[in-house]
Amino acid sequence: MKLQGNGIVAQSGGPTAVINNSVCGVTEEWIKKSSKGGILYGGIHGIKGILGEDLLELSSLPQEKIKGLRYTPGAALGSSRYKLQEEDYHRLLQVFQKRNIRYFFYIGGNDSMDTADRVHRLALRENYPLIVIGVPKTIDNDLPYTDHCPGYGSTAKYLAATVMETGIDLKGLITNRRVTILEVMGRNAGWLAAATALAKKDQADVPHLIYLPEVPFYKDKFLEDVERIYRELGYVYVVASEGIKDENGNYVVNTGSSRDSFGHVQLGGLAGTLKELVEKETGIKARCNIPGTTQRSAMHLASRTDAEEAYMVGAEAVRLAAEGKSGLMVTLVREGENGSYRCLPGNVELNKVANLEKKMPLDWITPDRNFVTPEFLKYVAPLIHGEISIPIKNGLPDYVNLDVGGIRKIMA
Amino acid sequence: MKLQGNGIVAQSGGPTAVINNSVCGVTEEWIKKSSKGGILYGGIHGIKGILGEDLLELSSLPQEKIKGLRYTPGAALGSSRYKLQEEDYHRLLQVFQKRNIRYFFYIGGNDSMDTADRVHRLALRENYPLIVIGVPKTIDNDLPYTDHCPGYGSTAKYLAATVMETGIDLKGLITNRRVTILEVMGRNAGWLAAATALAKKDQADVPHLIYLPEVPFYKDKFLEDVERIYRELGYVYVVASEGIKDENGNYVVNTGSSRDSFGHVQLGGLAGTLKELVEKETGIKARCNIPGTTQRSAMHLASRTDAEEAYMVGAEAVRLAAEGKSGLMVTLVREGENGSYRCLPGNVELNKVANLEKKMPLDWITPDRNFVTPEFLKYVAPLIHGEISIPIKNGLPDYVNLDVGGIRKIMA
Repeated sequence: MKLQGNGIVAQSGGPTAVINNSVCGVTEEWIKKSSKGGILYGGIHGIKGILGEDLLELSSLPQEKIKGLRYTPGAALGSSRYKLQEEDYHRLLQVFQKRNIRYFFYIGGNDSMDTADRVHRLALRENYPLIVIGVPKTIDNDLPYTDHCPGYGSTAKYLAATVMETGIDLKGLITNRRVTILEVMGRNAGWLAAATALAKKDQADVPHLIYLPEVPFYKDKFLEDVERIYRELGYVYVVASEGIKDENGNYVVNTGSSRDSFGHVQLGGLAGTLKELVEKETGIKARCNIPGTTQRSAMHLASRTDAEEAYMVGAEAVRLAAEGKSGLMVTLVREGENGSYRCLPGNVELNKVANLEKKMPLDWITPDRNFVTPEFLKYVAPLIHGEISIPIKNGLPDYVNLDVGGIRKIMA
Repeated sequence: MKLQGNGIVAQSGGPTAVINNSVCGVTEEWIKKSSKGGILYGGIHGIKGILGEDLLELSSLPQEKIKGLRYTPGAALGSSRYKLQEEDYHRLLQVFQKRNIRYFFYIGGNDSMDTADRVHRLALRENYPLIVIGVPKTIDNDLPYTDHCPGYGSTAKYLAATVMETGIDLKGLITNRRVTILEVMGRNAGWLAAATALAKKDQADVPHLIYLPEVPFYKDKFLEDVERIYRELGYVYVVASEGIKDENGNYVVNTGSSRDSFGHVQLGGLAGTLKELVEKETGIKARCNIPGTTQRSAMHLASRTDAEEAYMVGAEAVRLAAEGKSGLMVTLVREGENGSYRCLPGNVELNKVANLEKKMPLDWITPDRNFVTPEFLKYVAPLIHGEISIPIKNGLPDYVNLDVGGIRKIMA
């Protein structure tokens, strides 16, 4: 079935290395499936661009720009974190009506799926013929009903390689800085910190200790573990999720009042907190590596598996739309037997996903709460397979730029 | 001329992505030039391994291990930061005598060249026939008498790519975190921070502001610059050397009493200091990326030019030794006309280099002290050219490990 009318795709929340693959998947599949003259718009800076009618005609871009999205990190259309207000929903429908937009593809995480679900229900209530499909994206890997989330594998690969390389550095320079602390993104779910265990090949290899938000962080046990490994090896590599909490459920670091627009506490400085703790209580020197946004934008070391799946979920969203389905989020369903790996697209109702966070299962965390189990490694290992070839110019990646309105400012 | 007797090579100071290329260059050239039975030892953990006779027979390692050094980051032999005491010098000669070591190749930075120079002079005084050649290595690029230092180009490339990628991330997610601060290594020389300017393609591109230790950091001017760019673009990307100092010569961040074994002040937390400053004084939110040791170990994005030059200076050290030269450090001499680039090996007396630091020339820094000039970019651009192909296993780099005594502990 051909798509009737126009569509729109928007990116939401924190960018990832492969989120543009999903835009590319939506766009290329749209071009195949749309009726003559059907336009696919891109919302500039996510939902804010739709509200402000700040749009780009994705379906008319030169093919090489669209292809370039497959190796370009970040949100090429621009993204935003913005919680829709009551009046915004009606404004959205207004814009959709005016532009004859009948298909809304929203690429994002938990909050975005909630937004997509609300738009879907509003359109039903208002009797506006709109198909809404959510496209999963988050490095945090915390969306439910999907085996894993596009974006996760690439950050996992980058972080595991970083632990491997900085672990070699740590092991080499034995007279200095004997505890290395890597602070990894993850407010409530430890999937990313957990994935750094892929760097470990044998017992002595890094990382030695991994702390996740799913289980309480006991200060004394931590110091005991650090001292024990230090006595054994002479160096310790610690990986910690930014969102680890103590036995009372309080963040180990809490910058206080800073919250994002969804009301989530903004964290920062965990590595510094742990460094101070180690140095004060054990006398062993520590140093911090805090990759920050590097971990979600490192396309130069992205996972090909991840990039291909990010493309696939985008294309699948358009296929579902063409079948007349709505109110769904595309999922990844793992198939494959005897250790082989492959994922096919599936789907789930948006209202089931909205605002739910999938945490690490507790039985994938070791009983002493400082590492992950071989079962988790089996789950995560295939997600980092394969590399992406990026055009290089003068020694640096030659990424594409959609020039979305040049340097247009959109204030929160 | 054939090399007579045995030799030793050791790695010193902070590891780099390509320091093992120099070990490989020394070893492969040694195998070509040594007399029958001549052994090339590797000192495990640098000079400390020599003092403790903790040695490895590099010249008897399987060829594939030696070749693997060309794509393996960190100090494969182990490194250390250790200032030799008076009594240590005699112990060194004792070990050299006992093992019939006539050639000492020392790979390192300023402090290491001072050590090498002292060993050279001691041998002369004591009439022990020893040839000493220094092999330059430092990501800081602060050795004098050489166009640049092996190790610098790879970190420069990694940091520039990181700025490019995280700049795309910053630009994309316009509603959040509007100042990104990247803290870069460099205590007294700003070469690394300066190199991130390579990421900038046009006026609006990141990085916007670069702060170097060579010129004073004025807080008010900094805040003014940040606010001005923020008004223009809606986001600001700041790169700062960890060692920037205020107009009185005091570090902008100073953790106080922590010093390394050479008495250098240990810095840390600059990005956090600047973030707090920005948020308090301007009300604009900021976030920090602190790559730490990642920047000196990221072989997965190393510069092929740099790796080849690191190999070349190692091999050249052995050639100089075979010519009977001693008391020299190998240098890189830039040749090439009309914009072409090539470097040939040269050399300089160790005593000229020892303990001297080469800083960024002031006329490569813009008059308002917050960026670098096109002349600097011309200097640095060729150093990041070319990529290195690394064997990948299960999605991660498959680096070699010399298993230098397994997990032997050497305490400072």
